[in-house]
Amino acid sequence: MNALVLKAVNEPLFFQSTEEVEPGPGQVVVSLMASALNHRDLFIMQGLYAGIKLPVIPGSDGAGFFGNRRVVIYPALDWGDSPDFQGRDFRVLGMPDNGTFAERILVPESSVFDMPAHLNWEQAAALPLAGLTAWRVLFTRCKLKSGEKVLITGIGGGVALMALQLATAAGATVFVTSGSDEKIDKAVALGATDGENYKADGWDKRLKQKSGGFDVVIDSAGGDGFSLLPGICNPGARIGFYGGTLGKVNGLSLQPVFWKQISLLGSTMGSPREFEEMLLFVAAHGIIPVVDEVFSLKAGNSALEKMNSGNQFGKLVLRNTD
Amino acid sequence: MNALVLKAVNEPLFFQSTEEVEPGPGQVVVSLMASALNHRDLFIMQGLYAGIKLPVIPGSDGAGFFGNRRVVIYPALDWGDSPDFQGRDFRVLGMPDNGTFAERILVPESSVFDMPAHLNWEQAAALPLAGLTAWRVLFTRCKLKSGEKVLITGIGGGVALMALQLATAAGATVFVTSGSDEKIDKAVALGATDGENYKADGWDKRLKQKSGGFDVVIDSAGGDGFSLLPGICNPGARIGFYGGTLGKVNGLSLQPVFWKQISLLGSTMGSPREFEEMLLFVAAHGIIPVVDEVFSLKAGNSALEKMNSGNQFGKLVLRNTD
Repeated sequence: MNALVLKAVNEPLFFQSTEEVEPGPGQVVVSLMASALNHRDLFIMQGLYAGIKLPVIPGSDGAGFFGNRRVVIYPALDWGDSPDFQGRDFRVLGMPDNGTFAERILVPESSVFDMPAHLNWEQAAALPLAGLTAWRVLFTRCKLKSGEKVLITGIGGGVALMALQLATAAGATVFVTSGSDEKIDKAVALGATDGENYKADGWDKRLKQKSGGFDVVIDSAGGDGFSLLPGICNPGARIGFYGGTLGKVNGLSLQPVFWKQISLLGSTMGSPREFEEMLLFVAAHGIIPVVDEVFSLKAGNSALEKMNSGNQFGKLVLRNTD
Repeated sequence: MNALVLKAVNEPLFFQSTEEVEPGPGQVVVSLMASALNHRDLFIMQGLYAGIKLPVIPGSDGAGFFGNRRVVIYPALDWGDSPDFQGRDFRVLGMPDNGTFAERILVPESSVFDMPAHLNWEQAAALPLAGLTAWRVLFTRCKLKSGEKVLITGIGGGVALMALQLATAAGATVFVTSGSDEKIDKAVALGATDGENYKADGWDKRLKQKSGGFDVVIDSAGGDGFSLLPGICNPGARIGFYGGTLGKVNGLSLQPVFWKQISLLGSTMGSPREFEEMLLFVAAHGIIPVVDEVFSLKAGNSALEKMNSGNQFGKLVLRNTD
């Protein structure tokens, strides 16, 4: 079969013929119709993970046929026994296990879930990792309730956009930040109430005034800007985060955090059970993941370059030829 | 009646005759037998709170007679309607409302709770604010379970010691840190398994090795040392904090926090309901608060000086003459 293969870090992927998949006990073959990119793929290509084993087929997100069933794939393996955290054997699909940038993939049968019927292949492939991460941080960790006010920082990435769509569908009022006014406008078109450009000083105070204060904040940037978040939160607020791309947090005052009984909640991808809950919610609310651009599988490196530029709004999808 | 009165910031308290208390609707008089100091009293005297109204009788902790009943007093007023956070009218006893450094105090009848029968007046007066704060952070916020491993940083203060006693009574294994080896030894005598002096580099790694990692950490220091805590936590851990005496947190990496699904949970004093739960637990387990030294009410300034020195281990109590 054809696949995109990572042979060495800091080099492009190779589109090439690879060994055909051979299911072992409990494994099934999914014929992939589309896959989607995540920042994790870039980080692996840049050698930013410990214990990288090569060659590997990257990719965590995929949708395709399992027999006649249209399915999406749980984007990780071996979550483990506790609902509260992943076990020692947990790993994300696409490293060290071969991932979704291929024509076919081997996964445990328990990783295969019916695709929400309102989605096409590209939209379905855009959903798994981003939808699961957004679901866990919003509902499992931050326990978002209808009517609450939510801030999503750095809108434009896959998880942030899914968080916007899930939160508005759950009856929350959502505000966003971005370094791009254009992305804020697009987020408003998708259901956000308003936003602020974090490059302009005072964005936090203006957002607090606009919103009246936040009950839930979703962040993946960290950095020094994180320290501004407790100040714009309401009592009892939850700040959930699943990344820290801007580096360590400095200047965080604990006083507003404890006085307002705020919870700072780390979160990652979730369990297969959360994945199933997310899929049911997406189907019930007719949520359509935002796809920025679709490339052919063969053009995967072009998609990765676009992701590296940071200019996308929504997911970058790879389509397999029929 | 006699009371200790704060007339101006950065001046000692005055022991003097003051106006007799006159109960309004819903209020009752408690004849205080003992009261106890908290850092809050010092901070108020040092002018470190906004909106200080003088003169005032400080003091949040008190035990005494309500009629023939031996009672302890809920150390705050008007928690509010939500169990999750205090409402806008919430205030701690002793500022702006007159507090417990007096012969008598006016409180709402709902603030009066039966004293655990195994305690004497000094021990009972040492319990309310510290016990309530420790209860909320351990059980309401961090949801401590039997068998879990707990780290309590900066052992020696009232809340930290109550947290040690409550956690061991709940079946947890407790480790401590302190800047004083003597305080660590005393904590071990009280039920801690072991400890490390945080003045010695590598305390965090040694504690992780000794404990195998922590499920719950209780901190009130903040500062840069806070950033070391996620690294010694187990997956699913909760880090609860009710203070930040060492200032802002710098150098906090979010990666171990989100990857291990750690929760950083701000907490303060709790609700009257939590106060009642704490009292029942203290009675059921025969917990006796640690009293460092007892002074007469008249000698309150000496007690405050000792608190300012930071050398105490346990609560500083003021005893009213019979």
